[in-house]
Amino acid sequence: MTLCLSETDIRAVLHMPELMDAMEAALVAFSSGGAVQPVRPVVEMAATSFFAAMPGFLRSPPVLGAKLVAVIGPNRERGLPTHRASILLFDAETGGLLALLDGRLITEMRTAAVSAVSAKYMARRDARVLTILGSGVQARSHLEAMMQWRAFDEVRVWSPTGDHSRRFAAESGRLVCACMSARDAVTGADVVVLATSSPTPAIEDGWVTPGAHVISVGACRPDQREMDPALVARAQGGRRFARFGVSGIRRYRDGNTRGTIHRAPCRGRVRGSCDRRGDRPHGPRGSDAI
Amino acid sequence: MTLCLSETDIRAVLHMPELMDAMEAALVAFSSGGAVQPVRPVVEMAATSFFAAMPGFLRSPPVLGAKLVAVIGPNRERGLPTHRASILLFDAETGGLLALLDGRLITEMRTAAVSAVSAKYMARRDARVLTILGSGVQARSHLEAMMQWRAFDEVRVWSPTGDHSRRFAAESGRLVCACMSARDAVTGADVVVLATSSPTPAIEDGWVTPGAHVISVGACRPDQREMDPALVARAQGGRRFARFGVSGIRRYRDGNTRGTIHRAPCRGRVRGSCDRRGDRPHGPRGSDAI
Repeated sequence: MTLCLSETDIRAVLHMPELMDAMEAALVAFSSGGAVQPVRPVVEMAATSFFAAMPGFLRSPPVLGAKLVAVIGPNRERGLPTHRASILLFDAETGGLLALLDGRLITEMRTAAVSAVSAKYMARRDARVLTILGSGVQARSHLEAMMQWRAFDEVRVWSPTGDHSRRFAAESGRLVCACMSARDAVTGADVVVLATSSPTPAIEDGWVTPGAHVISVGACRPDQREMDPALVARAQGGRRFARFGVSGIRRYRDGNTRGTIHRAPCRGRVRGSCDRRGDRPHGPRGSDAI
Repeated sequence: MTLCLSETDIRAVLHMPELMDAMEAALVAFSSGGAVQPVRPVVEMAATSFFAAMPGFLRSPPVLGAKLVAVIGPNRERGLPTHRASILLFDAETGGLLALLDGRLITEMRTAAVSAVSAKYMARRDARVLTILGSGVQARSHLEAMMQWRAFDEVRVWSPTGDHSRRFAAESGRLVCACMSARDAVTGADVVVLATSSPTPAIEDGWVTPGAHVISVGACRPDQREMDPALVARAQGGRRFARFGVSGIRRYRDGNTRGTIHRAPCRGRVRGSCDRRGDRPHGPRGSDAI
């Protein structure tokens, strides 16, 4: 009998602290070859709609599954989530279907959990200012995950639409400051989360304080590029640039790295640093590297 | 509410004639660019076990879905199907999950239905002898599909294990002759179905009568090669070789074509012939081409 879990079911049992531990273990397994995660095939459906299949296999304990995700741009106008996902889990021994999970909330929370793990290992130990560019689903979940990792003294948000920034700040239930410009928000921040789907850089290299930890979440498509190429180059120069997960690199390099990166030091998406030997991620830890 | 259909549910509604019509339409859509079917990523789990994710999108009418298939070699000893699959269908407009279907029987029947469509367009019009090498699930479904297409005068089966051939013939409920050798079975046949998972050729080029239609079903892995390379070359020489579906060619060329094919005239798996302009497949039709 297949277990079916709705978003409500998932919400009742999925908590950020345990999820962050699980993501940390998953990143270690991936870096050490214990997890198999092939490049995902993407079906282009329309200008802002696509569908991706993401199979994965963990050798020990044996876990087999796949996420199927539809990203539907026009859902924004329909009042529906833009990212809708289903996750199937199988018995890795016999191939039998064990469970069907609604994957929307898991996608939302998991993404932020991985970012928080990257910050845990790569951000300054004394990080006190968190900046989030964007005000959507990922901005919200990153605020939760980052505050779970660390009680930042100051949290700033900026969104191209001023209203969105203010609403985000008001709804967050925390002391979040809605900034007037991206520059104001980023200057002096220790951890910067880019959660936009911007086709042009939302950040400039010069705004970023030495030693800051920059996390780009929102550029998973070839026509998106929220990072400043000069910033990517600076991080690369300091060998502090890496990609987690395997999602984008061969199939469709994300927009951030287009034309700036020829050899990625690790596979996956821009977020923190890891090495290929399976050690835990390691970061600037108070140095001036980005 | 997601519709969940078990194998029993599917068996009650899936019939070979309608399925063959649907597969014919799907092949036309695929050849004309109306269907998007990226190369499937494969997760290697063990020596004879793998997992594949197969997304697909039909533009008109809009249909979005994916099959997830686990092929588990050791299931043979467990009395379980070696191929287990789940199929998910989504609302192509909104990305919402519509249905979860058990995919085992669909996989079994669909494969044979495509073969029968290839025979419809490529085999001799006066084909009267059908030969099946193999005695497993695909041998059974191919017998059903081929007889649906045409009432062959003579049906032959051969399997490396003599017992299996005789059991298959006895259980088929038709006048099926269990042959003593693959050569006996293939010589003089008009349509030859290879449904083995043999790592070495199960057929020799010299056995195949000019004008025969040869369908290779069983070589979907790099270590499988049921076709004789000389036979593949002969079919290629006559421009009568093609691959349907998109499954194998880039990701892991199937064993049949390893070292023999450098440019495939069409994308997909070995089965019949099609062209790139979206016309219907066309075949030897009584000529001497293979």
